[in-house]
Amino acid sequence: MLRNDQLAEWDRENFFHPSTHLAQFARGEQQSRIITGAQGCHIEDRNGKKHLDAFAGLYCVNVGYGRTEIAEAIAKQAHELAYYHAYVGHGTEASITLSKMILDRSPAHMSKVYFGLGGSDANETNVKLVWYYNNILGRPEKKKIISRWRGYHGSGLVTGSLTGLELFHKKFDLPLAQVLHTDAPYYFRRDDLDQSEEQFVAQCVASLEELIAREGADTIAAFIGEPVLGTGGIVPPPAGYWTEIQKVLDKHDILLIADEVVTGFGRLGSMMGSDYYGMKPDIMTIAKGLTSAYAPLSGSIVSERMWKVLEDGTDENGVIGHGWTYSAHPIGAAAGVANLKLLDELNLIENNRETGAYLNKAMRDALGDHPHVGDIRGEGMLCAVEFVRDRDGRILFDASEKIGAQVAGALADSGVIGRAMPQGDILGFAPPFCLTREEADEVVAKTADAVGKILG
Amino acid sequence: MLRNDQLAEWDRENFFHPSTHLAQFARGEQQSRIITGAQGCHIEDRNGKKHLDAFAGLYCVNVGYGRTEIAEAIAKQAHELAYYHAYVGHGTEASITLSKMILDRSPAHMSKVYFGLGGSDANETNVKLVWYYNNILGRPEKKKIISRWRGYHGSGLVTGSLTGLELFHKKFDLPLAQVLHTDAPYYFRRDDLDQSEEQFVAQCVASLEELIAREGADTIAAFIGEPVLGTGGIVPPPAGYWTEIQKVLDKHDILLIADEVVTGFGRLGSMMGSDYYGMKPDIMTIAKGLTSAYAPLSGSIVSERMWKVLEDGTDENGVIGHGWTYSAHPIGAAAGVANLKLLDELNLIENNRETGAYLNKAMRDALGDHPHVGDIRGEGMLCAVEFVRDRDGRILFDASEKIGAQVAGALADSGVIGRAMPQGDILGFAPPFCLTREEADEVVAKTADAVGKILG
Repeated sequence: MLRNDQLAEWDRENFFHPSTHLAQFARGEQQSRIITGAQGCHIEDRNGKKHLDAFAGLYCVNVGYGRTEIAEAIAKQAHELAYYHAYVGHGTEASITLSKMILDRSPAHMSKVYFGLGGSDANETNVKLVWYYNNILGRPEKKKIISRWRGYHGSGLVTGSLTGLELFHKKFDLPLAQVLHTDAPYYFRRDDLDQSEEQFVAQCVASLEELIAREGADTIAAFIGEPVLGTGGIVPPPAGYWTEIQKVLDKHDILLIADEVVTGFGRLGSMMGSDYYGMKPDIMTIAKGLTSAYAPLSGSIVSERMWKVLEDGTDENGVIGHGWTYSAHPIGAAAGVANLKLLDELNLIENNRETGAYLNKAMRDALGDHPHVGDIRGEGMLCAVEFVRDRDGRILFDASEKIGAQVAGALADSGVIGRAMPQGDILGFAPPFCLTREEADEVVAKTADAVGKILG
Repeated sequence: MLRNDQLAEWDRENFFHPSTHLAQFARGEQQSRIITGAQGCHIEDRNGKKHLDAFAGLYCVNVGYGRTEIAEAIAKQAHELAYYHAYVGHGTEASITLSKMILDRSPAHMSKVYFGLGGSDANETNVKLVWYYNNILGRPEKKKIISRWRGYHGSGLVTGSLTGLELFHKKFDLPLAQVLHTDAPYYFRRDDLDQSEEQFVAQCVASLEELIAREGADTIAAFIGEPVLGTGGIVPPPAGYWTEIQKVLDKHDILLIADEVVTGFGRLGSMMGSDYYGMKPDIMTIAKGLTSAYAPLSGSIVSERMWKVLEDGTDENGVIGHGWTYSAHPIGAAAGVANLKLLDELNLIENNRETGAYLNKAMRDALGDHPHVGDIRGEGMLCAVEFVRDRDGRILFDASEKIGAQVAGALADSGVIGRAMPQGDILGFAPPFCLTREEADEVVAKTADAVGKILG
């Protein structure tokens, strides 16, 4: 067994951590934290310290940690056949079974699933497919993608461009051309405080229509959106938003990509976010909840309408020039099959719906009247608390005060992990679906304490 | 247990296979092929048919199939801790240990490894880091990336642009701007048959210098290349190529990205292709051989010189805005640790060097004089046979005849898997490192038979 110190030293010397302050980590100002085990909603580090993980990793360990059924499925697959590729019609029992299970859980008009590894590469696939689709249809100019400010769709070059958050653009020369951004459906942050939700939705629609008119509908291929904004602040859309947006897209023959990486497979208390909001996507992006992160796997579910065009494309051009070596990796597929079974067998989506509602209500009861809490919002097992300097005038804190990060830090000190969302003073929660009411109570009580500690 | 027919039906109805002719697959003209197990260099399908896989999946199952040591490491990790993220300084024993093992196997001037899932996303990371680096250095115009025709660097939008093969560009509107292509170091395909290797290298250098002069060195950030061209045709560079290219890059302060996805961890008989050719990369891309594909994992190894600038970047700008949810996934990391140990313990790189040389010699002995074999080339455990209509005049076959695919098909019928490389009539081999001389003999004998069957 390794000594702790040596591991920490190796870490600092060799490991380039994602989303980390590299210089602080190198200087030892940011601690190395080595996780050794986890069970249910709790993780444990090498020093024996336990935390209630109320963010499920990165909203991904939906069924909770330590599920023996998934570990055993992975182990069995690793022993039987760890890998073979899926090119040129190859498959495994796990990957084929999972493809059927995914389509069984998707809207009826969806047709096929292309497997990737994570949400970013799935959205990369989606843009490729959308461009290919319009080339086959003889519409070479119809290529731009509209995304929303505060959307999160990945961390690559094109997918980071789709993402509408400063952290992912700054110093990376993003967004690239081909990507346009429209308004975030973020009612709490509306410019005109007197606006009703309905008026705000009308404004989002008008703004989108203006953008389409300015660019020309014949230059716009697709609109991409998360049913509920995730990393942008955990923001459910205002009532009626998706219905109205869908009408605009249909009118201009613009494809809808529903990015269900966070919402897919139960996070909102329904199987898919698209069901929940009555969206009619042409492509759905799935990742995190597909395997509950037990192994990397993502997917792009394409509609029957798109699939037919893709088929025509290969009749015209031969084999489709898109492949990841690890597409439909057997280990990921086996984890996915076991994970989706577990969701059903343990009624986890139902628990998610009930306990998620309980958590949201308890959070509102505990903090709804706090003078520095401007908004508490959520849907299913998602909950966010947004802090403000002045509640009545909805005056935000200055970003340099890092209020969200301070509250998240105080909360972590008390043994509960929430997430300071990267843009704004927003504390986010996305616990595993197996959260109990007692655990929800603990999250709320400790959040209230942490808020009290930082904001009085 | 599922019936075969039902699985094949589910496959056709739900599964979007990569690099496949979608319409032929949908119509049943392309068969579904379900792989159920594998051992050593052999795979087995659901009908009990076995094949000697002389392409190691997609040149990735380097240690061979069915390695219990890796399966057990995956199983142990899945039970202990299947997932936690690596953001903000988090790690696991497996991911930290692997980061050290990777740096121990890399050139001394390399500093840190950023983990991804596959080669495509690792090259995506590389372009992001290169752009960030030049922004931090105050050189916002120095951003273009030079790649080579016939290079393969991924299947995404930017990475597919780096790739210099028609299949990956056609109908996808690639390459995107920001990517420039220069000559493939493909001596066999030189325009002037009288040119010596040395003259050909001088031409590649002159061509690169011209491109740099035309664009302006202050607009060019990096040059990316595989030590040996892989998917572009398995083409080792002419003698002295990398030494001369490196001089040009050094002169113009252009970073070198060595794409070691195929060559990393032993494929050429040395640990890295960069060692083998004396390249001095600023970034190295690793994937396939890192885990022998037992679980998805890739990496970007950055040099000390780049790392220092990245550190400065976070002191100026805070947390680096780049993260994959599954970066440093514990399952992949555990597979990587076990895989690299196995490479050492079983002396697989040495076997690879010896048996690879044996395979290449045997192939030359068997087919070197065939009137339709224009070139037999290889390095380590890589070997390619290129077919020509006329050997003396080096006249190629018309692409529509699909000679390469026909030979690969005949070879597969006899129980050996090679790969018809996507551009040109080239049959490629990249067997597992554990290939025996008897298996090499079988590959050669059956290849000779298949060539005889198709070309006489």
